[in-house]
Amino acid sequence: MKNILKSMVALLSILVAFTSCNNTSNQNAGALSGSAAEKVYVNPGEHDEFYAFISGGFSGQLSVYGLPSGRLFKVIPVFSQDAEKAYGYNEETKPMLNTSHGFVPWDDSHHPDISQTNGVIDGRWVFINGNNTPRIAKIDLSTFETTEIIEVPNSAGNHSSSFVTENTEYVVAGTRFSVPIPQKDMPIKDYKGNFKGALSFISVDPEHGHMDIKFQLIMPGFDYDLSHPGRGKSHGWFFFSTYNTEEASTLMEVNASQNDKDFIAAVNWKKIEEYVNNGGGTMMAANYAHNVYDESTHTATSTMKKEVLTVNPLDVPGAVYLMPTPKSPHGCDVDPTGEYIVGSGKLSANLTVHSFTKMLAAIENESFAGDAYGIPIIDFEASLAGVVEQPGLGPLHTEFDGKGNAYTTFFISSEVVKWKLGTWEVVDRQPCYYSVGHLMIPGGNSQKPFGKYVVAMNKITKDRYLPTGPEVTQSAQLYDISGDKMELLLDFPTVGEPHYAAGCPADLIKPRSKKLFKLEENNHPYATKNEADTKVVREGKDVHVYMTTIRSHFSPDNIEGIKVGDKVYFHITNLEQDYDVPHGVSMIGANTSELLIMPGQTETFVWEPKQVGVWPFYCTDFCSALHQEMQGYVRVSAANSSTPLRWSLGEDIE
Amino acid sequence: MKNILKSMVALLSILVAFTSCNNTSNQNAGALSGSAAEKVYVNPGEHDEFYAFISGGFSGQLSVYGLPSGRLFKVIPVFSQDAEKAYGYNEETKPMLNTSHGFVPWDDSHHPDISQTNGVIDGRWVFINGNNTPRIAKIDLSTFETTEIIEVPNSAGNHSSSFVTENTEYVVAGTRFSVPIPQKDMPIKDYKGNFKGALSFISVDPEHGHMDIKFQLIMPGFDYDLSHPGRGKSHGWFFFSTYNTEEASTLMEVNASQNDKDFIAAVNWKKIEEYVNNGGGTMMAANYAHNVYDESTHTATSTMKKEVLTVNPLDVPGAVYLMPTPKSPHGCDVDPTGEYIVGSGKLSANLTVHSFTKMLAAIENESFAGDAYGIPIIDFEASLAGVVEQPGLGPLHTEFDGKGNAYTTFFISSEVVKWKLGTWEVVDRQPCYYSVGHLMIPGGNSQKPFGKYVVAMNKITKDRYLPTGPEVTQSAQLYDISGDKMELLLDFPTVGEPHYAAGCPADLIKPRSKKLFKLEENNHPYATKNEADTKVVREGKDVHVYMTTIRSHFSPDNIEGIKVGDKVYFHITNLEQDYDVPHGVSMIGANTSELLIMPGQTETFVWEPKQVGVWPFYCTDFCSALHQEMQGYVRVSAANSSTPLRWSLGEDIE
Repeated sequence: MKNILKSMVALLSILVAFTSCNNTSNQNAGALSGSAAEKVYVNPGEHDEFYAFISGGFSGQLSVYGLPSGRLFKVIPVFSQDAEKAYGYNEETKPMLNTSHGFVPWDDSHHPDISQTNGVIDGRWVFINGNNTPRIAKIDLSTFETTEIIEVPNSAGNHSSSFVTENTEYVVAGTRFSVPIPQKDMPIKDYKGNFKGALSFISVDPEHGHMDIKFQLIMPGFDYDLSHPGRGKSHGWFFFSTYNTEEASTLMEVNASQNDKDFIAAVNWKKIEEYVNNGGGTMMAANYAHNVYDESTHTATSTMKKEVLTVNPLDVPGAVYLMPTPKSPHGCDVDPTGEYIVGSGKLSANLTVHSFTKMLAAIENESFAGDAYGIPIIDFEASLAGVVEQPGLGPLHTEFDGKGNAYTTFFISSEVVKWKLGTWEVVDRQPCYYSVGHLMIPGGNSQKPFGKYVVAMNKITKDRYLPTGPEVTQSAQLYDISGDKMELLLDFPTVGEPHYAAGCPADLIKPRSKKLFKLEENNHPYATKNEADTKVVREGKDVHVYMTTIRSHFSPDNIEGIKVGDKVYFHITNLEQDYDVPHGVSMIGANTSELLIMPGQTETFVWEPKQVGVWPFYCTDFCSALHQEMQGYVRVSAANSSTPLRWSLGEDIE
Repeated sequence: MKNILKSMVALLSILVAFTSCNNTSNQNAGALSGSAAEKVYVNPGEHDEFYAFISGGFSGQLSVYGLPSGRLFKVIPVFSQDAEKAYGYNEETKPMLNTSHGFVPWDDSHHPDISQTNGVIDGRWVFINGNNTPRIAKIDLSTFETTEIIEVPNSAGNHSSSFVTENTEYVVAGTRFSVPIPQKDMPIKDYKGNFKGALSFISVDPEHGHMDIKFQLIMPGFDYDLSHPGRGKSHGWFFFSTYNTEEASTLMEVNASQNDKDFIAAVNWKKIEEYVNNGGGTMMAANYAHNVYDESTHTATSTMKKEVLTVNPLDVPGAVYLMPTPKSPHGCDVDPTGEYIVGSGKLSANLTVHSFTKMLAAIENESFAGDAYGIPIIDFEASLAGVVEQPGLGPLHTEFDGKGNAYTTFFISSEVVKWKLGTWEVVDRQPCYYSVGHLMIPGGNSQKPFGKYVVAMNKITKDRYLPTGPEVTQSAQLYDISGDKMELLLDFPTVGEPHYAAGCPADLIKPRSKKLFKLEENNHPYATKNEADTKVVREGKDVHVYMTTIRSHFSPDNIEGIKVGDKVYFHITNLEQDYDVPHGVSMIGANTSELLIMPGQTETFVWEPKQVGVWPFYCTDFCSALHQEMQGYVRVSAANSSTPLRWSLGEDIE
């Protein structure tokens, strides 16, 4: 123990020393500011050129920004409850957060990826992973709402996720932590050789986007960190970086940093797909939630699935190989042609690039350097395309501009480094403020990047903005990469941890953005489509209020005959059919959130009145000049009272 | 009913017609953009000049922006749960959201106001009201955290809140909706004459800021919409706008819009304070929560208070007067000298300005036009200072630049109008995009405004930004008011509804902003101040884990002997003592949020494992180059197992 701690301390002091901050303001700011200010400014009323979907990391959500302005347009609730939007609070969306562990109101959202067709971003959906209680979510880019979440069984710290194949055949989710599969009570010290890592291939229905776990590949007990699909010539393959090939299970910062090389796992998913389509694989008992939001009923349902198809890689010869890669590789990025797989060994001095063509040749020639649990290890030199020599300290992630250049982030030396594919020469570098994680070029992980801007997502900001106490914002930085040299344009703060992002030209999404929900298409079972149909119905202690909103009143706005001990369901339909006229509803003392109801939509909150009295409710979204008059009262009588159930609008209840 | 509906339809069609959108982009954008871009751009690494605290409205939170950049630095959780920060999820902050109705995880936050000393903003605290389940919160501007929330009994739709007097003697909370006081089961139709409106004066301890309800003034059953303190010559008075002086209780958009004039209530709080200090007032049984966060223990406690002192205005002659004001006045704003009280009759063609001096004279001369429930009504002409003639449609709010100018927002005609105090002439107007509610000039409601910028907070944005489906962001606009003419500089989107804001120069707050919590000052009962003291303690089915974090490991990181059915409290202390090095913690399957623990802080989450197995936890905040290695495992055995309770770091559990 003492030796381990000593080596840990030594390692840490190196790392802490190198996690230095470039703690000065931008040296070129004076000269730059004129053009930079103009380049990021969007005239009031005009639109940004790109959407950027930046994950919230530990916020659990996905945020929508405009580029180049860096302005935040929406925080889409995905894995965390959001009281503002009633997400996870109203009856309609609570099922979205159901899991095999029950209702889980938070997760850690990391890697958004936009759907693709023929290797090019198509702007239909964006997928994102929840790390903590492993889940994959799908967001519909016509409504900007989360419409599906599938839990991933046999997985833990779902990190090498959620990346899509070239036609969105699959969204892929790889475990970060290995665990007993299936879970069982066993000593932690018996990790090695007994814990396993599941790589899940989730099929996506090409028309509606419905997700289903097609198969799980049960791999050795490494940590699977990141992944990217093959494309072009490597379509049909998927690549995963690994660390902790030591299979340590305690003090990982020391014990998982021992091996000189870990692996990038190359998975031929086409071959495995064929294998399982022909009846291969083993169906295993499982228990995981599949939650689907139906836009027609404005309601989500949660179904527990009971089995999952698993595949032992040894049963599909030729499907899985391991490419040695120095050292604890984090990023695993594939260039637009599909030829190069970049492994960023976060403790390595160099960047390692594998060649897909050479990998195939090595497989053909059986240029192997042994195996790990039966999986062939390709000889390091055999698949090696090249090395970027000493480009910086702590390489993490690489994206591409489509013009033959790669851009890699360096966490420890806090910079973005631009280098050339094929020659491996460094051609430019720009400092980040401060420690940078991911970076994003719109389309930068597709066949067709839009190489105008790169966004660097930084982990520390310290003094970059006005202070906000001990907790300061995390931050993104925007660089212009249209010229030979990168130019820092803008610091902009972010929601949560700006872990990773996906971006695309606005024109891919803007024309398809829905403005409202059509009232006649509302199939919510408790929808009320006109004021004449509003009513209050008692069913034992349950009371259902069929209520409507329109500028600027509720119908009904007076209700009597509610009793202490009742469970009152307010089902509220927003009758508006104009763009940007939501109504909000709140009730004093409710143990839930407001509702924020879009035009044509129905939402429900539950109120369990505990005290007799006359209690008000009101509209929470400023809807008109008479918004402040949009209110009502509910009379609550004692549990044993005989106050009759009555309701009205514009007339006294006599 | 039919006639009412008919007149309502007529009224609505007028209002809807006038709620027109200026749906073109800024006409001057081409000419403006150069200088506007430069004016709002803050060089990377440099700081904004002003803090703006913009309420989230229906988000329940308070957001911190920089001006002129419009960048969002932090969303401070106040009234709503925030899974990112564990606010309302961890054991330490759950008591903050306790109320007499139980745990209420959301509210509607409207009017932030920064503490003042001698009528000038002092940057110590910002107060904000929760409308729905009436509460007032206090945020400490050294930590940017909510440190106190007091519930307001006898109140509903707590809207004419939370504004402070010149030395922060009081933060004032006025009810919007009148209710039976005390609450009782009674017919809604008997509202008139029976429902009452409570105006609450909450004392603020000058040293620590602790809040306590000093007294509640029990007023007639009107709706109390907004309020502002007297200042300078009118110090000691407080002014409240009213509507629904009709005392209607249904279809308010029609029935509360009948009277030509409603009132501004003038309250001499100094006189009432003297009255209650001399034993005046009636103690009434009540039940309301007082929640205090202790920075030393990093923990909140909630106490239920059982009585409140009420005052009948008729018992304190000379303390309360009503000034007739056309028509459904919304804003009630006092100029920097304290002489003028501006009433914005939202259905009036003109702006009405009262004179404090004339009001005193009218009282002296008994120039009364009757009374309402015994409260003298001052003759309209007697207190009238002047009228701004037909400045726009739908006036809402007014702020001041300290140079003799007032700026009023017009919701229906969507503009900010600048006019001169004393001459009442309109001198400039600028369109808003679109319907504007409040506006804010830093210090604009104090004796010393900083009249460089005004922020307009808009209710509708429609096409101003890239679309995000049916729900689009709300928006603020920044104008330069340093010259004779206002100049639109920037559109920036906001969190929730940007209901109102308070602002001040950065230098008032920046030097006092705390960077970390000192470990030696941490008095959390479950704090662990070094790794040697980490342990796991079983107390029946409760298990307490005393855990620490430091880059980049947990201590302990392996735990065995936990059983299904246990309730496991993870008390985690972040040992870091550097700025901007939080750690986050999450546990797979926990039915709560992550923790986000600042340096020196202790936080607690509870985990109730439901399944046997070996379950991982990890750090959720990217803390170092070896963050990805910061993880651990908990072994969960069956409820009846005999696995001994053990834990370790860096060694196997044998």
